[in-house]
Amino acid sequence: MKQVVAGIDIGGTNTVFGLTDHEGVIHATGSLKTGDYSDSEVFIKDLTDAIRNAITPEMKLVGVGLGCPNGNHYEGVMEDAKNLKMRGTVRFVERFEAILGVPTALTNDANAAAIGEMVFGDAKYLKDFIMVTLGTGVGSGFVANGRLIYGHDSFGGELGHTIVFPDGRQCNCGRKGCLETYTSASGIARTFTELTEQKTGQKLENVTSLDVAQEAEKGNPIAIETLDYTAKVLGLSLANATAITSPSHIFLFGGPVKSGKYLLEPLKKYMEEYMLFIFKDKVKLQVSALMDKNAAILGSAALIWEQLDRKIA
Amino acid sequence: MKQVVAGIDIGGTNTVFGLTDHEGVIHATGSLKTGDYSDSEVFIKDLTDAIRNAITPEMKLVGVGLGCPNGNHYEGVMEDAKNLKMRGTVRFVERFEAILGVPTALTNDANAAAIGEMVFGDAKYLKDFIMVTLGTGVGSGFVANGRLIYGHDSFGGELGHTIVFPDGRQCNCGRKGCLETYTSASGIARTFTELTEQKTGQKLENVTSLDVAQEAEKGNPIAIETLDYTAKVLGLSLANATAITSPSHIFLFGGPVKSGKYLLEPLKKYMEEYMLFIFKDKVKLQVSALMDKNAAILGSAALIWEQLDRKIA
Repeated sequence: MKQVVAGIDIGGTNTVFGLTDHEGVIHATGSLKTGDYSDSEVFIKDLTDAIRNAITPEMKLVGVGLGCPNGNHYEGVMEDAKNLKMRGTVRFVERFEAILGVPTALTNDANAAAIGEMVFGDAKYLKDFIMVTLGTGVGSGFVANGRLIYGHDSFGGELGHTIVFPDGRQCNCGRKGCLETYTSASGIARTFTELTEQKTGQKLENVTSLDVAQEAEKGNPIAIETLDYTAKVLGLSLANATAITSPSHIFLFGGPVKSGKYLLEPLKKYMEEYMLFIFKDKVKLQVSALMDKNAAILGSAALIWEQLDRKIA
Repeated sequence: MKQVVAGIDIGGTNTVFGLTDHEGVIHATGSLKTGDYSDSEVFIKDLTDAIRNAITPEMKLVGVGLGCPNGNHYEGVMEDAKNLKMRGTVRFVERFEAILGVPTALTNDANAAAIGEMVFGDAKYLKDFIMVTLGTGVGSGFVANGRLIYGHDSFGGELGHTIVFPDGRQCNCGRKGCLETYTSASGIARTFTELTEQKTGQKLENVTSLDVAQEAEKGNPIAIETLDYTAKVLGLSLANATAITSPSHIFLFGGPVKSGKYLLEPLKKYMEEYMLFIFKDKVKLQVSALMDKNAAILGSAALIWEQLDRKIA
């Protein structure tokens, strides 16, 4: 019998799961429309039913890992996720353990991505690294001494909400100048829109970070400048993060990373420029090895594999 | 027989040591003038001789802990300490273990202060906290999951060299805008000197942070403004550090902390203002419990007690 864990990614639109073995092979998948559910008990019933139905006689389910918005790892709950219809505190870990009878763990997406890299990606033998995810927001997972830094309340690793410019752009969190207002997908689109208006007077609407990447590929100098500026702000932030946890590697994940050399080359340059001398030319900056794989499922599955491995070790 | 460890603090002017038991009681002390030594072998011989001579028949030496500038914990060496006459790489751990025959460990001062707080101070049962030392520079030690964050090369925890203003004050490290150019003792003195010239035209010389504290006590509005500004910059930095490691406590240590309410009250206020909502009113900001004790000796002694304790556990 093949031991598998259910790696589940709860997103605003879809919830996907995959029955994943210890080598990261996904043997079966399934999905639900998260948006269809306002009652978390109904959601949990449908999701656990779908997982049970996907298990074949050759498989043995040994755990469940969940990645979800506002995941509190210590409590095993999702707390008031803004983008979902299911409100309040959803006790996923308790309910899954009761229904499926296997160890269950939960965290947020960026932490799951960090653990995914550690279990299935290029961070397998690394003790000190940072995962930075660029998407709607900017997430991060910090690993030190071989362990994820959850912090005292499980909410550590919010690099996207470190303030880079105290009087900078308004952030959704209510404060100003957070990293994610500059280097998330929407931050990049905003920089491009602002620079275009400044330089040409043209008011663009509904620009995406993918548009910016495509414009840069075509040679649009404003798009190239946008990605250069994004790289400068992120480079500063990565140099500052390095001064705290001194990682051997920094991994990048998410749509904007696909902007390729127009983002990554200046990012490497600025990060080194801003780096304290003792850290210069030491930190490897690289794209996540799970970038084009089923990273959300693998990250969630890794969460529980990592716990099971530590119990054995 | 009382088990003791030698806690050693190697400073630019003096090197002090104390034979310290597991409860933090110092049973004997001694010192050397660091500045008298350019040959590290002579220094090590004199220091180990002094330690041997201080051990009475009732004591048994079980370890040596060293706090020193540019200490590389993993390698057990001091690397090119700028303020000392002993140049190059000094292999303290190897030499002490060979001469005294007991486990020896080494780290920098701020990390030693963090471990000192964990073993002998108010961080005894804490798993996630930050120690910030304000002195000639700004040092820090980060503890997550109950372990100090040394990072991959042992140089982690350099909060003083995170950049708060990218085009800010010139730092000794060669970059601009590091936290320590604003919130170290000399950074505070510089702010006071600059504000005084701006507001009165008077050019002050040789101001110290102690002068600023005393002026604030007397009601000098420029001194009060100086400490308020210092608190604002440090508060921003502590809020950013919290977003990464989510500590339950932040401890402060060093001369400027004695500026009392003129620094600590605005610091608490600004830190909360800059804090991401999920961390607001959660982090306890407090003065180190070792502040008026023999902290440098206790911190170095704690380094080795903590290692011995972990081996037993």
